[in-house]
Amino acid sequence: MKKSLSNKITSEKSIINKFFKRLSYNKSGTFKFENDAAYLNISQRYKTIVTTDTIIENVDFFSNDPPASIAQKLVCVNLSDLSAMGSLPKAYTLNISINSKINYEWLKKFTKRLSYLQKKYQIYLVGGDVSKSKEISLSSTFFGEAKLKYILSQNNCKIGDDIWVTGNLGNSFLGYKLLSISNLKIDRKNFNGFKNKYLYPKPCMFGYIGSKYINAATDISDGFYGDLKKILNGKYGAKLNINNIPISNNLKRVFLDNKSLINLDDILNWGDDYELIFTTNREYRNKIFSLAKKNNVKLSIVGTIIKKKGIFDDSMNLIKNVSSFDHFC
Amino acid sequence: MKKSLSNKITSEKSIINKFFKRLSYNKSGTFKFENDAAYLNISQRYKTIVTTDTIIENVDFFSNDPPASIAQKLVCVNLSDLSAMGSLPKAYTLNISINSKINYEWLKKFTKRLSYLQKKYQIYLVGGDVSKSKEISLSSTFFGEAKLKYILSQNNCKIGDDIWVTGNLGNSFLGYKLLSISNLKIDRKNFNGFKNKYLYPKPCMFGYIGSKYINAATDISDGFYGDLKKILNGKYGAKLNINNIPISNNLKRVFLDNKSLINLDDILNWGDDYELIFTTNREYRNKIFSLAKKNNVKLSIVGTIIKKKGIFDDSMNLIKNVSSFDHFC
Repeated sequence: MKKSLSNKITSEKSIINKFFKRLSYNKSGTFKFENDAAYLNISQRYKTIVTTDTIIENVDFFSNDPPASIAQKLVCVNLSDLSAMGSLPKAYTLNISINSKINYEWLKKFTKRLSYLQKKYQIYLVGGDVSKSKEISLSSTFFGEAKLKYILSQNNCKIGDDIWVTGNLGNSFLGYKLLSISNLKIDRKNFNGFKNKYLYPKPCMFGYIGSKYINAATDISDGFYGDLKKILNGKYGAKLNINNIPISNNLKRVFLDNKSLINLDDILNWGDDYELIFTTNREYRNKIFSLAKKNNVKLSIVGTIIKKKGIFDDSMNLIKNVSSFDHFC
Repeated sequence: MKKSLSNKITSEKSIINKFFKRLSYNKSGTFKFENDAAYLNISQRYKTIVTTDTIIENVDFFSNDPPASIAQKLVCVNLSDLSAMGSLPKAYTLNISINSKINYEWLKKFTKRLSYLQKKYQIYLVGGDVSKSKEISLSSTFFGEAKLKYILSQNNCKIGDDIWVTGNLGNSFLGYKLLSISNLKIDRKNFNGFKNKYLYPKPCMFGYIGSKYINAATDISDGFYGDLKKILNGKYGAKLNINNIPISNNLKRVFLDNKSLINLDDILNWGDDYELIFTTNREYRNKIFSLAKKNNVKLSIVGTIIKKKGIFDDSMNLIKNVSSFDHFC
């Protein structure tokens, strides 16, 4: 069976020529997207890190979300994974499946955002695929580079490690809630800020910067607790100082004003902030703070890795029983 | 917004653990699929070749096609591209979006075929993504290796080059027609053979084998004429010996019996055989035939690259006007 786009192949080719070809930056290996494949230009001293993610209409984004937001999410989820592995992003492929709702204007806005993100993160498009489908679906495979000895794993924490969180948690969650719950009390001037945190999440790229000192890392894509459990790997526990979990003052204000509607637990079980959780030996504490300051990254120490399984508060009250959650995280 | 599968994350995790994890062969770099990303193990002497393709329900396959056929097509379209670039396949990622029609039995059959293909082509699964969607959609990014100087391009043919085609063309086309036209006259004993060529296409991996001698190559995914035009690249022409275009005797018999329903032109404008077209300097003719024999690959010389633009028969009658098709191929 032929691809339906092959029946009017001018469309597929014109989409590629009009919108995507320039995203290759004409780099060697891309062959101007005129070949069946491409080659990567990763230095011989590095390993090529690979991650891939699919985002789908009405699952990961709403159909009517701005095309720039959809581009941002696709890039963010993948960059965040590269960061969690301690790698520097280099290039990506894009498989875009579009339906009749997508027009040239949509593609223009979508690729304009890709172009902006390419410059920001110094990446280029190495190839891809355009298909026709009933629902909009985007798959992207991202490539980064890292020295073998600095590649990060999520299950390599040590007892006594500091547990760090980057940025602030929960702003994306509130942005999403604002789109679905109309009666939230919120200061008008903060409304767009929260909404944009949801629509335009930014990956935290500290993983590569700190990779020399980090023992275990993951990005927060399934919620703070869920992702912390991945790091604990059913083998260790965490003693948390809940007050140190980074929440912006604006978000704390919303909690106070909407006690019956949202609470801290909601945001700690929610992903989409694309911040990182990582652990380091305490001896690197100053080194890490100094790297963060230099790179303008907000960091918080939220707890310590302990031998006793489970997630505890600083009075050692159990918050989550890690071992019983093994198959869920 | 969370992925809907994250709401019942046991499902996503159980799918990965039950069906996909073993496809990693526990190779270094895959981290047993427990990390956010993976790394590739490509030797430093080679470039990493990348290709990616998406296949979608009711566009590239029928919803009720056997899961093994869908796995075969996904792997075939990608391997064929790696071959056309002159590279040896090494690994792949898989983004699988499934709907409620997919059950464990389907996944078992699908991954059983992947497992078979992994052994056959000596590849392993390096990572991926499972999503929920309305329509079944599969994206896969494949990685191969090739020495930089032997990477093949589709637009590097030279005047005087032999034009080669691997295997036989059109069997997949007939297999497809048998599923959609019920009144084709065909010998019962050949029915399943043609149907299987459509359902289980095999990529021709001669690209890597012959890469030292090949000037230009592409796989036949858009039809012989369309893909030959890619090689001619709007700059050259081709003089064909139509009688040398490889058609099986069984298929010739079907032409004779069904003159009003199908003809040669249909199959030359149809892809899905995943054979290769490539060109070489005539001096390598014997070398190429000898490599093909050694590797049990059927090869035919179907024509010559000429200066005059267009595709001609051996009496120089124009078959296709290449230059006027620039934007279509």
